[in-house]
Amino acid sequence: MTKITDVEVVDVRFPTSLSADGSDAMNKDADYSAAYVILRTDDPSLTGHGFTFTIGRGTDICVLAARHRAEPLLGADVDELLDDLGGTYRALKADSQLRWLGPEKGVEHLAMAAVMNALWDMAARRAGKPLWRLLADMPAEQLVDIADLQYLSDALTRDEAIGLLRKLEPTRAERIAELERTGYPCYTTSAGWLGYSDEKMRRLLREALDAGYRHVKLKVGADLQEDIRRCRIAREVIGPDAHLMIDANQVWDVPQAIDWVGALAEFKPLWIEEPTSPDDVLGHAAIRRAVAPIGVATGEHGMNRVLFKQLFQANAIDFCQLDSARLASINEILAVYLMAKKFGIPVCPHAGGVGLCELVQHLSIFDYIAVSGTLENRVTEFVDHLHEHFVDPCIVENGAYRVPTAPGYSAEMHEESLREYAYPDGTYWAARTRFRGVRTQAAVG
Amino acid sequence: MTKITDVEVVDVRFPTSLSADGSDAMNKDADYSAAYVILRTDDPSLTGHGFTFTIGRGTDICVLAARHRAEPLLGADVDELLDDLGGTYRALKADSQLRWLGPEKGVEHLAMAAVMNALWDMAARRAGKPLWRLLADMPAEQLVDIADLQYLSDALTRDEAIGLLRKLEPTRAERIAELERTGYPCYTTSAGWLGYSDEKMRRLLREALDAGYRHVKLKVGADLQEDIRRCRIAREVIGPDAHLMIDANQVWDVPQAIDWVGALAEFKPLWIEEPTSPDDVLGHAAIRRAVAPIGVATGEHGMNRVLFKQLFQANAIDFCQLDSARLASINEILAVYLMAKKFGIPVCPHAGGVGLCELVQHLSIFDYIAVSGTLENRVTEFVDHLHEHFVDPCIVENGAYRVPTAPGYSAEMHEESLREYAYPDGTYWAARTRFRGVRTQAAVG
Repeated sequence: MTKITDVEVVDVRFPTSLSADGSDAMNKDADYSAAYVILRTDDPSLTGHGFTFTIGRGTDICVLAARHRAEPLLGADVDELLDDLGGTYRALKADSQLRWLGPEKGVEHLAMAAVMNALWDMAARRAGKPLWRLLADMPAEQLVDIADLQYLSDALTRDEAIGLLRKLEPTRAERIAELERTGYPCYTTSAGWLGYSDEKMRRLLREALDAGYRHVKLKVGADLQEDIRRCRIAREVIGPDAHLMIDANQVWDVPQAIDWVGALAEFKPLWIEEPTSPDDVLGHAAIRRAVAPIGVATGEHGMNRVLFKQLFQANAIDFCQLDSARLASINEILAVYLMAKKFGIPVCPHAGGVGLCELVQHLSIFDYIAVSGTLENRVTEFVDHLHEHFVDPCIVENGAYRVPTAPGYSAEMHEESLREYAYPDGTYWAARTRFRGVRTQAAVG
Repeated sequence: MTKITDVEVVDVRFPTSLSADGSDAMNKDADYSAAYVILRTDDPSLTGHGFTFTIGRGTDICVLAARHRAEPLLGADVDELLDDLGGTYRALKADSQLRWLGPEKGVEHLAMAAVMNALWDMAARRAGKPLWRLLADMPAEQLVDIADLQYLSDALTRDEAIGLLRKLEPTRAERIAELERTGYPCYTTSAGWLGYSDEKMRRLLREALDAGYRHVKLKVGADLQEDIRRCRIAREVIGPDAHLMIDANQVWDVPQAIDWVGALAEFKPLWIEEPTSPDDVLGHAAIRRAVAPIGVATGEHGMNRVLFKQLFQANAIDFCQLDSARLASINEILAVYLMAKKFGIPVCPHAGGVGLCELVQHLSIFDYIAVSGTLENRVTEFVDHLHEHFVDPCIVENGAYRVPTAPGYSAEMHEESLREYAYPDGTYWAARTRFRGVRTQAAVG
């Protein structure tokens, strides 16, 4: 019998704010970070790696929360845990004292994501399969048992979910073969960060087209005249046929979003992403009605499946951008994919940050194989940075994610990266905090 | 110039699970707790006390988050902070790295509530007034400057908010005089916890009627036949005219809520509280349509003002039960009260736990004086436990909160209580963890 012998949670932070990578109208100085969970067993060859994505300060809060959430795993039997990952998830989430701190949102939910991501990574490793294939090899009933359908029955029943999955079961193998040839289509955000110069933006957009991308994304929302200028440059470079997406990162109220997007309509964006508060279902619905045919996209801050249920029910979005490290791993993500299928909304997962691309490739590939069965209007985010820290980094060619083949969820970071960027004691941070003072928030008042 | 010299955050936990106080269908073993913030200044007579309410495990996570959130206050000038509590709030919430961990929800938001509650307590002490009077002495424009209206302008504009408050300004003094005579009406939950025996419930219900209450609340949702039996007993004891409320603490899906409440309709509950996920605006609206004339109440887990905006916009609730330690203190609570006024929804704040009654009395009193101007359909929760730990405990007589008179927000706990119940090193917990092992979550698998 193999047992969980150790839970380690590492606060790891990359100093991305120094290069303005990741700068947008809301997040001006993100240091891409992770609360990174390592589960060890008494079998030295079997580990599990998972994380939630953060942007600097407060990563330690998620680390503490993940330690608490993972505590009941210590000493548990690995086969019992992994043979019933639906039951394991429900047992972890049943802690009513921790539930009070959400429920199912914020730091506690990020921590749940990190822990369950590590368990799913371990399950795929134990099976000797990449995560997408572990899932693609499961029959419909098993997948639905894993999915967290609590609070969803007014939108999707268990029987409906099984029915949706069963229809595509006979043809899964065809789509696997297709993706192994073509990869899964993606788009790039690497060109459009708000902190980049015009020249850098032009160069990166040209490089994106040359690399095979047909979709590019710009950050907007800080200054309308600047946005008009930058969108004009982008359309000049990419031409009329490639897709331009714009992303406001939640800076607007609803009426302001409608006005601002209207002023950018001439550049024919495919979607406006995060036009307002991620919690505002009815606000997104109002914006969508007003800015059509421009689509509305949101989800990277979509806190849980109940929010997504309502976004679908209210016809509030055209594109669902769920986040692999904010939703509580496969159990909750699967529920969102199933609802998206029923409501006919394409899922284009959020990625970027650190490690999110490594995770979402598995999700999109599985979605095509077993849930949606289509690539129409689907395109998954890709941002080309920080992949060098991963043992099994994602590979993008001709604007598509290549299908991963190594066992696991591609979440493992190099030990050397952890030694360097662990906060505050890794070699990178220790050198800087010693000589320059700890990086802290500016004082108030 | 007076400066903030020290921020202390204490993890304090009371062993309420031992007596089944606070037991409901979702929360079976709550140990009422707080992440308790003490702000000290170089004036020994000027401090600020505030907290967020938790129920045991994970309080340490909120403590860590509150320490981070309060860090920029250290060394700040007290007059600058307190003369512009709108600006102070916005400066604290502007930290985009911490924002990522919510935004404005979960642990980070609870921590923001604790810190801002302490600042509001300090502001009232500095003014030598109870908090409700500090607010009732502010003109309409100042109150609206303090309120956090971000993301709300599709429901309530700044000008509308000022207009609502101005109408009642000339008559504030009359309502103050009235409340000083009568107190603010409340109801009791003390009788109806799920873990209590029938005999104890009967006795407590009779005592509640004798003490002047006209509203009592029962917990439901664990077992339908039990609920029918307990509701029947309650109606027998309180008669046909007193109000019975029922509270399911989020245990149902939407269709199940509709069926279950239908089966209890014969007992004519005034409201069903928390019938489903607190995030489910559209679900509450569906339940409300189905169970009318029984009212729908929710809000103790209402994560932020954007959720309440939608509950109002969607006609989802009959009673708004905002929480004084989950919303980000007066700045956000004021925004919810203003929206409730515009939409005509009575606010009946959640209380109980530890210290929540001490806080909400200020809110309800201020609401009547300056925002709603009416007591119709208003009744504020009261639970009679743990008040002995507070320096200025709330006083309830004849089913009404007496108007507090001491300067501050009534949030200060006795130093002796902190010494005894600080976790894990207070005298109470140190004795128990030494001999009985640490109280931890049950293992999984």
